[in-house]
Amino acid sequence: MADPRFFKKPQALSLAQVVGKIGAKLYVASDADYLVTDVAALDTAQDGQLSFLDNKKYKDQFEKTKAGACIIHPDMVEFAPDGVRLILSESPYKAYATAAQIFYPETRPDPMISKFSSIHPDAKIGQGVHIADFVTIGAGAEIGDYVWIDSHTSIGAGVILGDYVRIGNNATVSHAVIGSHSRVYPGVRIGQDGFGFAIDPTGFVKVPQLGRVMVGDHVEIGANTTVDRGASGDTVIGSGSWIDNLVQIGHNVKIGRACVIVAQVGIAGSSELGDFVVLAGQVGVAGHLKIGAMAKVAAQSGVTKNIPAKEEWMGYPAMPMKRYLRQSVYLSKVIDHKKEGHN
Amino acid sequence: MADPRFFKKPQALSLAQVVGKIGAKLYVASDADYLVTDVAALDTAQDGQLSFLDNKKYKDQFEKTKAGACIIHPDMVEFAPDGVRLILSESPYKAYATAAQIFYPETRPDPMISKFSSIHPDAKIGQGVHIADFVTIGAGAEIGDYVWIDSHTSIGAGVILGDYVRIGNNATVSHAVIGSHSRVYPGVRIGQDGFGFAIDPTGFVKVPQLGRVMVGDHVEIGANTTVDRGASGDTVIGSGSWIDNLVQIGHNVKIGRACVIVAQVGIAGSSELGDFVVLAGQVGVAGHLKIGAMAKVAAQSGVTKNIPAKEEWMGYPAMPMKRYLRQSVYLSKVIDHKKEGHN
Amino acid sequence: MADPRFFKKPQALSLAQVVGKIGAKLYVASDADYLVTDVAALDTAQDGQLSFLDNKKYKDQFEKTKAGACIIHPDMVEFAPDGVRLILSESPYKAYATAAQIFYPETRPDPMISKFSSIHPDAKIGQGVHIADFVTIGAGAEIGDYVWIDSHTSIGAGVILGDYVRIGNNATVSHAVIGSHSRVYPGVRIGQDGFGFAIDPTGFVKVPQLGRVMVGDHVEIGANTTVDRGASGDTVIGSGSWIDNLVQIGHNVKIGRACVIVAQVGIAGSSELGDFVVLAGQVGVAGHLKIGAMAKVAAQSGVTKNIPAKEEWMGYPAMPMKRYLRQSVYLSKVIDHKKEGHN
Repeated sequence: MADPRFFKKPQALSLAQVVGKIGAKLYVASDADYLVTDVAALDTAQDGQLSFLDNKKYKDQFEKTKAGACIIHPDMVEFAPDGVRLILSESPYKAYATAAQIFYPETRPDPMISKFSSIHPDAKIGQGVHIADFVTIGAGAEIGDYVWIDSHTSIGAGVILGDYVRIGNNATVSHAVIGSHSRVYPGVRIGQDGFGFAIDPTGFVKVPQLGRVMVGDHVEIGANTTVDRGASGDTVIGSGSWIDNLVQIGHNVKIGRACVIVAQVGIAGSSELGDFVVLAGQVGVAGHLKIGAMAKVAAQSGVTKNIPAKEEWMGYPAMPMKRYLRQSVYLSKVIDHKKEGHN
Repeated sequence: MADPRFFKKPQALSLAQVVGKIGAKLYVASDADYLVTDVAALDTAQDGQLSFLDNKKYKDQFEKTKAGACIIHPDMVEFAPDGVRLILSESPYKAYATAAQIFYPETRPDPMISKFSSIHPDAKIGQGVHIADFVTIGAGAEIGDYVWIDSHTSIGAGVILGDYVRIGNNATVSHAVIGSHSRVYPGVRIGQDGFGFAIDPTGFVKVPQLGRVMVGDHVEIGANTTVDRGASGDTVIGSGSWIDNLVQIGHNVKIGRACVIVAQVGIAGSSELGDFVVLAGQVGVAGHLKIGAMAKVAAQSGVTKNIPAKEEWMGYPAMPMKRYLRQSVYLSKVIDHKKEGHN
Repeated sequence: MADPRFFKKPQALSLAQVVGKIGAKLYVASDADYLVTDVAALDTAQDGQLSFLDNKKYKDQFEKTKAGACIIHPDMVEFAPDGVRLILSESPYKAYATAAQIFYPETRPDPMISKFSSIHPDAKIGQGVHIADFVTIGAGAEIGDYVWIDSHTSIGAGVILGDYVRIGNNATVSHAVIGSHSRVYPGVRIGQDGFGFAIDPTGFVKVPQLGRVMVGDHVEIGANTTVDRGASGDTVIGSGSWIDNLVQIGHNVKIGRACVIVAQVGIAGSSELGDFVVLAGQVGVAGHLKIGAMAKVAAQSGVTKNIPAKEEWMGYPAMPMKRYLRQSVYLSKVIDHKKEGHN
């Protein structure tokens, strides 16, 4: 059970109510009235709690679970232990996520504008907003309805936040337009000048950074991530993309829709990602490259060339996954051979 | 055109005025009175706007540009489309940078000390400063003339900021002396204790970190970068160096003048960089190493040895570029050979 | 000498007092009354100052040091220059660290609750706390005795901070329980939602993150590091572990006791580290792995498999150190061979 210090105790629901809301179905119709009071992991769930099995690696835990009910793929019915009520779904993890959202809805704080905030009189503030302590909002900013801005955050002059946007604590947002329902985590820096200068024997000359950061709807930007504004034209993050913590997005980068950018990735200036691209943790992408839609790049890879759509790449420098694996296998065999005393 | 929500509309200038200020010359003297109202990229520039061509990769864009005027290298005159007024420069990017600064000068806010700031009575505050909301300044700090400190930033006791220094939002500066005209971006942490402890079977013993961070003039330190203070002696960043976002600078690191440190680089304790060193993105440098002046290290490399001046290194672990490329070519050939069915 | 702008001048101590406090012994008993006024590095130490030699690489500096006294291993006595008083210890660095702590004790500020802080009336505040300007503390938080919270920091609802905890400036702590004597550096983000979502052709569904962050005693968490809370169950950092700057700790990661996690490491969700594990800088650890107690991973390695206890691994992907070195030597030889004109 989630710690009540931090999470509100959920309301009980019958399995009939649960399956109705998550688009799944009961394996045994007569379980419909069974009451579920919480969600939990397979290994800790108890009677009255709802769990799920998505990754077959955890089949052992499923076979021993004490959960009152469990969301599973139809293929897994045969492994169910006695006494566990089964909910069938083609996408058990998604169905669980939806159920967990019902038990633990995001609790937005009540509308409020803290007396310890500093809001420019020329800013436009929507209805139902929550503006916490020590927030600053600059001249001409437009804050949509039901926006939630947490403490110690600075919203620069002219910034536009769409409806239902949430900005975490200690964040800095300038030169940006952020779509509705997007969420910016604590410590994020959006809109500062990119790393742009002309090098010359007599010293560096700063190139004014005259663009913006354009963030779509339903985007998530993780803690302490940095997104520089465009040099000329904009830095763009497409709707539905999720960006993890400590990521660097250079100036004029364009990220498509529904991309996944895992922690500590760095994307250099002007590179472009198509839709549904996945960059695993600590990947680096050099500047002025194109990564096609649905391409995937393995963790820590260093991308120095364009990647065609739908391909999987890996390595330093990154290459198609098959080629990388051939290289790894070759090196591995040579070493094993040498170890056995050959020359 | 830069979004007027975020940037002040520039004043028009004649080409004669422009070339006078940027140290370039007109190709056709009779263009002197042509009025330029803005700067723009080659592919979006229109009549009345000034663009530039620096990287020959963009020659195609140049041949089709609708820009009213364009700064180019004399070698590129023959590719100019009709109707574009030409400005000749040996360093087109630098000339453009200078022009862009004229059209979009950095707009410092008016002098102000926010009533929502907390400044110790023993701090010395120069003239013409701008201290935004929720800034704290500790005892004995010395803030130079025309310094601009953005909101939610903490300047610790005893810190010295030179004239015209700018510190971004949500930054933390302690145990530091920062030269004039330097700029610290949002979320930077300067002067905290380095990672120093003695390991012992009975536990770790913290080593007091008794040094400072000494930052030269005209330095830039990017968003969410961390610079630890020296353990004994100082951490030093030389004048004119540019440091990008999310970089880690360990205790007692010495960075020379005019170095370029790209995003997510990490430099471990006591390593030293000569002048004009370039570390590309995500490079790691182990502790107690020396990287000679004008050396360059390719992205994601892991430096474990001293690098002589002027050399280019790459790889994990890093080695001279030529050697690294030989290794890459060899592996590549072996794999291609195997792919063709050889053993 | 440490800059008096930032550090309080230490009080003089006799060598007899020093050795008594650090558990070492004098080489020459008659040096007992010699007064030491400060600590310093070998190459800058002067008469009246205490230095140390731990790493034999610095033997040259030792042979020329002007230090008044020096802590060394008994094996190094023969290299001592004339006039330096010797303190013998089996662990010179640890003995020095302890001595430096005596000369420069951590100076906690006087108890205070800033009038510019915003503390919820339902929070419990211990005795002797120092709560700096612009701090926010949420409902139901419990702040132990002698806790020090620096400026611009947010302590979320329900958070528990043990006695003597110190939280740096501009930090964000939510959904967390932090043990006594632990220290959180500036800009740290603890307790935000982890990167959890179900992927589906129709879009991503956020998985509510219902766990906490449990931090032990005497833990250090470096500047701008991010620690996500558990998805279900907790993210755990064991007592005595030291985490450097800009580290990413994913949801449900478990870190044992006395681990060392160097700057810019990333640990993906649900991975577990035993006690005394060392991860060097920029290491990446994939999700759902186990790294055994006392294992060590070299800088920049990418861990994709479980690592047995006590082993040293390196590489991308990481492998046992010996295997990695064999591979490196092989490649190096092949290249040298080719360079000499062989085919």
